[in-house]
Amino acid sequence: MNVEQVRSAVLKLSVHNDAVLSEQGPHCPGSETLDIRHFGGEESIVRPAVTDMHFPEVVFPTSRVGRVAGLEKVRELVVEHHRLIWHSPLQPIFGGNEKHFWKAVELTADFHAEVCGGPKLYSERKGHPHLRERHFPFTIREKDRELWLDLYVQALRNVAFPLEVAEEYWRWVESLSIRMINRRTTFAEPVRVPFNHIAERLA
Amino acid sequence: MNVEQVRSAVLKLSVHNDAVLSEQGPHCPGSETLDIRHFGGEESIVRPAVTDMHFPEVVFPTSRVGRVAGLEKVRELVVEHHRLIWHSPLQPIFGGNEKHFWKAVELTADFHAEVCGGPKLYSERKGHPHLRERHFPFTIREKDRELWLDLYVQALRNVAFPLEVAEEYWRWVESLSIRMINRRTTFAEPVRVPFNHIAERLA
Repeated sequence: MNVEQVRSAVLKLSVHNDAVLSEQGPHCPGSETLDIRHFGGEESIVRPAVTDMHFPEVVFPTSRVGRVAGLEKVRELVVEHHRLIWHSPLQPIFGGNEKHFWKAVELTADFHAEVCGGPKLYSERKGHPHLRERHFPFTIREKDRELWLDLYVQALRNVAFPLEVAEEYWRWVESLSIRMINRRTTFAEPVRVPFNHIAERLA
Repeated sequence: MNVEQVRSAVLKLSVHNDAVLSEQGPHCPGSETLDIRHFGGEESIVRPAVTDMHFPEVVFPTSRVGRVAGLEKVRELVVEHHRLIWHSPLQPIFGGNEKHFWKAVELTADFHAEVCGGPKLYSERKGHPHLRERHFPFTIREKDRELWLDLYVQALRNVAFPLEVAEEYWRWVESLSIRMINRRTTFAEPVRVPFNHIAERLA
């Protein structure tokens, strides 16, 4: 069994259990309106339409982040984050080829530096980022994002990212990362991690 | 490589390709508002909030379906559908244990018979169906639902399900099945298959 199979098996065990099902809220929005006593009656039961995934607004950083932190610091942060990822349970999402991984990290560093006011290395090469779309091939669950964010906090701390611009940077990655979730395993809305929840860990 | 790994590899190849990315619409709703020329400017770029998954209304069948078709015919339909599933690329979703599979099919037949006016076998045993939740452990992509629906049409035909109530039954499974999708691989809204698109195949 490889790591991906273990993850998958653990997920099945933890979710496919009636006890968990009944206690571990929340249920589908609107499910309380389904009265099962009326199954198979003379009148149709109607479940109203609902929406599942809500992607909140994303506010991109400005050139201020690159000016204050320095573009090299932004790149260092991206590299450090991915170093942590490579040694985490997220590694299987990124595949087994370490050389390809670091090549992709370079591109990601180009993107983050550009977004923070640096040269247009990313957009000249790739155009529109279409990030959710680019992540479709990789199974990303709500919990994967949470770990990814947690590693980001560690990386911000490890590279001593300047606190004056950490909030502006954080509010971007925190909200944008919700859009990468493509494997739903719960009805719960993705966890929000506002900057004041992590500020203590950075100080 | 097992079947699941092959599926996963094919998915990666077909999606993780820049040419496909740029041509295979649609893109994320609102992505056209992101002007990449403004990355890293003095002003923040703001991506507005959007929703991704829209689950349309679900209209359950009435006892008329069970009266006209017969509850045994409803059960036969469910069994035939799953016989086709077991011999299709959907099989890995249902796991490798054929005995467990047929036990689950019995429960599904109880559910469908109850919804069509039969005895309350399912709800007395399981309570609220919470179907999306029960399917969370199993990775279900948009394409998997499309194949599942296609096999349903074959099953309706194979068991000669009475045409007078096929539409009432179909509009339920077609709309409900959208709520089982938990792995997004495209921005496209799930394909709708209205009854008049399949009626010809049943006649």
